[in-house]
Amino acid sequence: MSNMQIDAYMACDADYADARIVMFGAPYDGTTSFRPGTRFGPPQIRRESFGLETYSPYLKTDLTDMRICDLGDLELCFGDSEAVLGAVAGRTAAILADGKLPFMTGGEHLVTLGAVRAAVAAYPMLHIVHFDAHADLRDDYLGVKLSHACVLRRCHELTGDGRIHQFGIRSGDRSEFIFADRHTDMHALSLGGLEETLTALKGLPVYLTVDLDVLDPSVFPGTGTPEPGGVNFDELRRAVTAVCEKADVVACDVTELSPHYDESGASTAVACKIIREMLLALGAKRR
Amino acid sequence: MSNMQIDAYMACDADYADARIVMFGAPYDGTTSFRPGTRFGPPQIRRESFGLETYSPYLKTDLTDMRICDLGDLELCFGDSEAVLGAVAGRTAAILADGKLPFMTGGEHLVTLGAVRAAVAAYPMLHIVHFDAHADLRDDYLGVKLSHACVLRRCHELTGDGRIHQFGIRSGDRSEFIFADRHTDMHALSLGGLEETLTALKGLPVYLTVDLDVLDPSVFPGTGTPEPGGVNFDELRRAVTAVCEKADVVACDVTELSPHYDESGASTAVACKIIREMLLALGAKRR
Amino acid sequence: MSNMQIDAYMACDADYADARIVMFGAPYDGTTSFRPGTRFGPPQIRRESFGLETYSPYLKTDLTDMRICDLGDLELCFGDSEAVLGAVAGRTAAILADGKLPFMTGGEHLVTLGAVRAAVAAYPMLHIVHFDAHADLRDDYLGVKLSHACVLRRCHELTGDGRIHQFGIRSGDRSEFIFADRHTDMHALSLGGLEETLTALKGLPVYLTVDLDVLDPSVFPGTGTPEPGGVNFDELRRAVTAVCEKADVVACDVTELSPHYDESGASTAVACKIIREMLLALGAKRR
Amino acid sequence: MSNMQIDAYMACDADYADARIVMFGAPYDGTTSFRPGTRFGPPQIRRESFGLETYSPYLKTDLTDMRICDLGDLELCFGDSEAVLGAVAGRTAAILADGKLPFMTGGEHLVTLGAVRAAVAAYPMLHIVHFDAHADLRDDYLGVKLSHACVLRRCHELTGDGRIHQFGIRSGDRSEFIFADRHTDMHALSLGGLEETLTALKGLPVYLTVDLDVLDPSVFPGTGTPEPGGVNFDELRRAVTAVCEKADVVACDVTELSPHYDESGASTAVACKIIREMLLALGAKRR
Amino acid sequence: MSNMQIDAYMACDADYADARIVMFGAPYDGTTSFRPGTRFGPPQIRRESFGLETYSPYLKTDLTDMRICDLGDLELCFGDSEAVLGAVAGRTAAILADGKLPFMTGGEHLVTLGAVRAAVAAYPMLHIVHFDAHADLRDDYLGVKLSHACVLRRCHELTGDGRIHQFGIRSGDRSEFIFADRHTDMHALSLGGLEETLTALKGLPVYLTVDLDVLDPSVFPGTGTPEPGGVNFDELRRAVTAVCEKADVVACDVTELSPHYDESGASTAVACKIIREMLLALGAKRR
Amino acid sequence: MSNMQIDAYMACDADYADARIVMFGAPYDGTTSFRPGTRFGPPQIRRESFGLETYSPYLKTDLTDMRICDLGDLELCFGDSEAVLGAVAGRTAAILADGKLPFMTGGEHLVTLGAVRAAVAAYPMLHIVHFDAHADLRDDYLGVKLSHACVLRRCHELTGDGRIHQFGIRSGDRSEFIFADRHTDMHALSLGGLEETLTALKGLPVYLTVDLDVLDPSVFPGTGTPEPGGVNFDELRRAVTAVCEKADVVACDVTELSPHYDESGASTAVACKIIREMLLALGAKRR
Repeated sequence: MSNMQIDAYMACDADYADARIVMFGAPYDGTTSFRPGTRFGPPQIRRESFGLETYSPYLKTDLTDMRICDLGDLELCFGDSEAVLGAVAGRTAAILADGKLPFMTGGEHLVTLGAVRAAVAAYPMLHIVHFDAHADLRDDYLGVKLSHACVLRRCHELTGDGRIHQFGIRSGDRSEFIFADRHTDMHALSLGGLEETLTALKGLPVYLTVDLDVLDPSVFPGTGTPEPGGVNFDELRRAVTAVCEKADVVACDVTELSPHYDESGASTAVACKIIREMLLALGAKRR
Repeated sequence: MSNMQIDAYMACDADYADARIVMFGAPYDGTTSFRPGTRFGPPQIRRESFGLETYSPYLKTDLTDMRICDLGDLELCFGDSEAVLGAVAGRTAAILADGKLPFMTGGEHLVTLGAVRAAVAAYPMLHIVHFDAHADLRDDYLGVKLSHACVLRRCHELTGDGRIHQFGIRSGDRSEFIFADRHTDMHALSLGGLEETLTALKGLPVYLTVDLDVLDPSVFPGTGTPEPGGVNFDELRRAVTAVCEKADVVACDVTELSPHYDESGASTAVACKIIREMLLALGAKRR
Repeated sequence: MSNMQIDAYMACDADYADARIVMFGAPYDGTTSFRPGTRFGPPQIRRESFGLETYSPYLKTDLTDMRICDLGDLELCFGDSEAVLGAVAGRTAAILADGKLPFMTGGEHLVTLGAVRAAVAAYPMLHIVHFDAHADLRDDYLGVKLSHACVLRRCHELTGDGRIHQFGIRSGDRSEFIFADRHTDMHALSLGGLEETLTALKGLPVYLTVDLDVLDPSVFPGTGTPEPGGVNFDELRRAVTAVCEKADVVACDVTELSPHYDESGASTAVACKIIREMLLALGAKRR
Repeated sequence: MSNMQIDAYMACDADYADARIVMFGAPYDGTTSFRPGTRFGPPQIRRESFGLETYSPYLKTDLTDMRICDLGDLELCFGDSEAVLGAVAGRTAAILADGKLPFMTGGEHLVTLGAVRAAVAAYPMLHIVHFDAHADLRDDYLGVKLSHACVLRRCHELTGDGRIHQFGIRSGDRSEFIFADRHTDMHALSLGGLEETLTALKGLPVYLTVDLDVLDPSVFPGTGTPEPGGVNFDELRRAVTAVCEKADVVACDVTELSPHYDESGASTAVACKIIREMLLALGAKRR
Repeated sequence: MSNMQIDAYMACDADYADARIVMFGAPYDGTTSFRPGTRFGPPQIRRESFGLETYSPYLKTDLTDMRICDLGDLELCFGDSEAVLGAVAGRTAAILADGKLPFMTGGEHLVTLGAVRAAVAAYPMLHIVHFDAHADLRDDYLGVKLSHACVLRRCHELTGDGRIHQFGIRSGDRSEFIFADRHTDMHALSLGGLEETLTALKGLPVYLTVDLDVLDPSVFPGTGTPEPGGVNFDELRRAVTAVCEKADVVACDVTELSPHYDESGASTAVACKIIREMLLALGAKRR
Repeated sequence: MSNMQIDAYMACDADYADARIVMFGAPYDGTTSFRPGTRFGPPQIRRESFGLETYSPYLKTDLTDMRICDLGDLELCFGDSEAVLGAVAGRTAAILADGKLPFMTGGEHLVTLGAVRAAVAAYPMLHIVHFDAHADLRDDYLGVKLSHACVLRRCHELTGDGRIHQFGIRSGDRSEFIFADRHTDMHALSLGGLEETLTALKGLPVYLTVDLDVLDPSVFPGTGTPEPGGVNFDELRRAVTAVCEKADVVACDVTELSPHYDESGASTAVACKIIREMLLALGAKRR
């Protein structure tokens, strides 16, 4: 009499104590200015992951060989972004303190700031590898500093110049591109330059943040602000695999799936598969 | 480090051992001939129940006062209806054997047959109270005997004449209405006659089966075969409350929510609220 | 080797020669100013009719007992409303000339004008019974005379004063209500007065036109211009049955289903069932 | 060369200086915990109003006879509810100071608090007439005080006991109903008692707030939290007309349309028509 | 009086006796475990084909030059997969016996087994060319042997080792890839190796089965189990054209369109166009 | 008290007198035979443009540096195509007469004929550069000459042979391709040959018409007649930029977005971004 269901990303059912990688969801979209809905991303990813297989023919490994735990979603309130970031940072810090790798699913991109706060506290030399369509470097958005449109700018205040490596950026106002020229390592319009960056980052702690809208909307329509001109699935799959295999990733996230704009489920499948490949590449080093 | 999520209908988180009512889902629609999708009903009901309150201003009681357990969904295979019915019957029989009340959510109406098999084995004098738009009294459907369109006919083979009490029926082929005239207690086109039936059933064991398409499609569009001309929400709410309060219900089910046809979520809310009222009325007698 | 499919409304498969009632579709919405899509109504009605039964528990008769033929849809061009009306009038006239009853499905309400032209030619004393949310009495719409918003005004030019009986009207500009006061028999806001009208029409030839948006949008959301405050399903079902049973209906139509706004299929089911009841009531007098 | 489009609710194109009623939108849903989207309500109402007529056959008056101005939407930031309420209160206070009647469209129900702050400052004896499915009387929601679920509780802090008159409430946790028993004038489950309330309020300044989810979801599915068991269109239409005609309404709002859950557009049509009837009833006294 | 509509794929209106290619639909999805709906594929393909042209600028030929008959859909029951496969095999065998080429549209991939049974009976040396995202080589799925997930495994039991040539496979559990290594000719992750395979198959009878989910979900979202990482439209178009032109195709199918997940209609257009190109390439050899 | 909203494409808020480029919408789809809805394109483009940035990282310029005016949409009647074309031609001629560049958004492709009439009157040597999936060279469509399917054929009557340069065409009936061989400069199946064409057009006045269905439906599903096999976003972006930078474009349009088939909003984003790039390239020469 025991099929009480546990909601976890497929095959990520290790006990917390045993786990090497710990997933959790941050279902928050309270500062999203255009089209909300990423709050529904984490549970949708968990549920729909069962439409995929645990085995990857790309990496020829299987999630059932890894020790991964899914803690489910944080309970977050709407109407107080600082409290939300506190909850995310607290969860991330606890996982790091236990020697495990935090793997967060969003939610809007602002939640990354909470995780980066915890990661930079644990690893002061932290670098950030950032895949995104948008620069996210505004100083404020309509007067609000804790906004999805400002998240990398807030991260820059924690890391300083030259520690944020941005790929795929194809949207921003003019001032953000000027800021990037001076303060970040931006690779606009494509994922070009990743190999060199990974070589340079050897031995340094890395936070990997993937805003899935770096993909072209033909591949990933299910997001709040589609930006035509992005990369395709195989380009992103290869890129995140390279980061997870070659860099010393200490924490990571995948954000911005908005299921309401994913009528066919194809975007959710993309999110699930990118996560599977990241977990497999990260897990291979942590068995 | 303990927010691992449990997927249960709101506030139905008692331990099985303590529970007086035991919910489970039967996500099967393998014989649905017109528009499939009720397989998605049970998890959708569970998830969306959190949009409602646990307190009923109609009954002035609260689910948090009841001892209800939600076992989640049975894992059912597609392609073998007999195996599905076996799983449903087994689960129902086990709950009955433990002295608890089984409360099943469907799924297509065929799953009721599995539960009725177990209930009639435990209670040979079983009567069935049936709310539905459709008579479901065909002998076969395109040659298939185990079909949603035949479920009450199969039940009649178990109970015999005069033990099936049908309300709200407004669709069927001519032969089904002729069969009903001879073998069942059918109240067509409305819920009229329920009070008299409940008086007559006093002291007898009752299986209550609610096919939600008894509701008018304006109230409940989210179903595979919408039948205009049905009852409204308050009529059904009052009717199921009356059955649960006045009859000796030994097992029950609520079936035929098909979430893909419920774009707005209103049908799921109706399903969740009917279930809440039934649980509260049943639970008040089993605290 | 013979399951070549014939697309016909359920059970309306009589040969034309044998048929007493002849259905055809007029899939045109070329003057619809707000939200187009009624062009998809006729085939959708035909297809989805198979989700219903041929037997009516209201009338206790069956379509399989009637002699009805479905000729399918007229092929109509977009960009020339006069040609469209010519095609509709030609088809209607031919069916009338063969002593059969034409039953048209729309399409936007403008197509009624084509059928009325043929009917008034055959029956100079023709009266029109009109169920609708909208008065449709404008003299022109943005300069266009052949517009869905003007269709009853054009019909009035053919019949003269006092021959158009309007029910359920709850929308129009002020001038249309003033026109109705002087020239038509309008029963606004409800179906009240129908019985008296039917008594007065005894012995006179009647064209029945049903714009389904006379129904409340809760019952029938699938239309281009939803108008809250309409009648419910049973009110319309009873009303059209009364007209078909008591009046001498010589031709009729059912218009304005727009399937794209009928996500759940409930509106199409309403259209199919209203048509079934009309066919059964009309057919009972023409076996 | 002058068809630059002005986005205004139909026929509400008076100059501000001339206007007696002043509409504005408050497109905010930043504390919505379940399903966001009411931010899209105000522009959708404005656009889709053109599918209706300016003339009401119920009231036999026309918007073109009234002097109404639509200022469009406030530009509101996401991530700072206090700033949002400040903007709403400022706009409302300015309109009141100019001797005009503010008519706000939401947005989530929280925005009402901003308008009530301004109204109670101008009219210390203010009473509130509140149509809603939900009590909205929580003291906080997950620790947040400025939440849609708390808005009437916050209003109670401004008005004190006995000045909030609630109708149609059918959802809340047990504590909210206990609070209502002690502090508000709640009429649960229906609109019963409205006439007596209006008699008692004669001569007192009234703020009218309409949460459209007071309607049954069959009539109004397009909202974040559908609650089965509500009133129908004509009941609400008559009720708001009565308040606008009989009470001394000094400001008002209509909230909680969420267009993403209104696939057919029927809910938006309901919102537009309720607003039209309110404007006509209010305007008749202010020509 | 003769526009009774025939539902056939565009321009495929030859008499059966004259036809060289014979289409039929197998609208079955009774074992689909994840998201059902492919039962709606065959009629949707037929209807929407009229949005395309009969002429191909790729092949510079026209369907109107070919002799193709469309028999419409088999009437299949839900709840008995063996009966379904029997009906498919019977239809396929009859067409083969008449010296014509059977062209089946699905439906879920399981229906291929019925057609292969007939084809292998007629051509014992049959090879299968298989385009798919999924290996479909499981021995059973939740205990069910006749499952869409097992269809090529069942085919392998008929053909033996080395006769199944799989292309584009990018999903399966580990055991399926191990099985493929030993028993089938699998070309994973792309369509590479097709030319060599076609050379090797010269003179041998070939069954071509196209599961459209071999396409990337950006191109073909309208399917039950989207698998990111697939081929694009031109790759598949060229591949199926090559097989139809160069191999001795004796029967073929195109499966797994699920229209409910094809909101825009783009997936249906892809299916229709792939079918048109196949028909033109096959027909050029059979005029 | 002045936030009355102006509906204009982002940053295109110059006064008409100052403007160098003048946008307007032609929301007409009255001859669309397959799936209507492009009438909703122009306002959707205007509204959703605010989800993009005014700055282009491709061109490194900003719309805020340009002088562009958006006049909003023409008010067009349905039911009279000739009147519609007259309104379009009148608007275009007036803008040309004022020495400004007209930039029209559709609407179905027929509206191009109105603008070309005005442009050829002003520039008798006019050439047309045409991006499209469809040849649009039929002489009539079901007897209608003013049809979207005939628009380039009508333009050819104005320009004569060799002055229409077609790119990306992949659909048409056989006769259209034969017509193109004799009378137009067609580059079928891709955008190949554009550079040479632009070289040849040096110094000649060019009308640029972009039917967005030239894009592959994976990129642009939101259109009435999706045609698989089209170009991707970057190919079209580069092509329109080249034309705007290198040719002497005297007027232009972008047509055939149908928002109802753009559930995710990705197609609208594509339309908005193509327009932004065109405006920036055109504006750079007209500051």
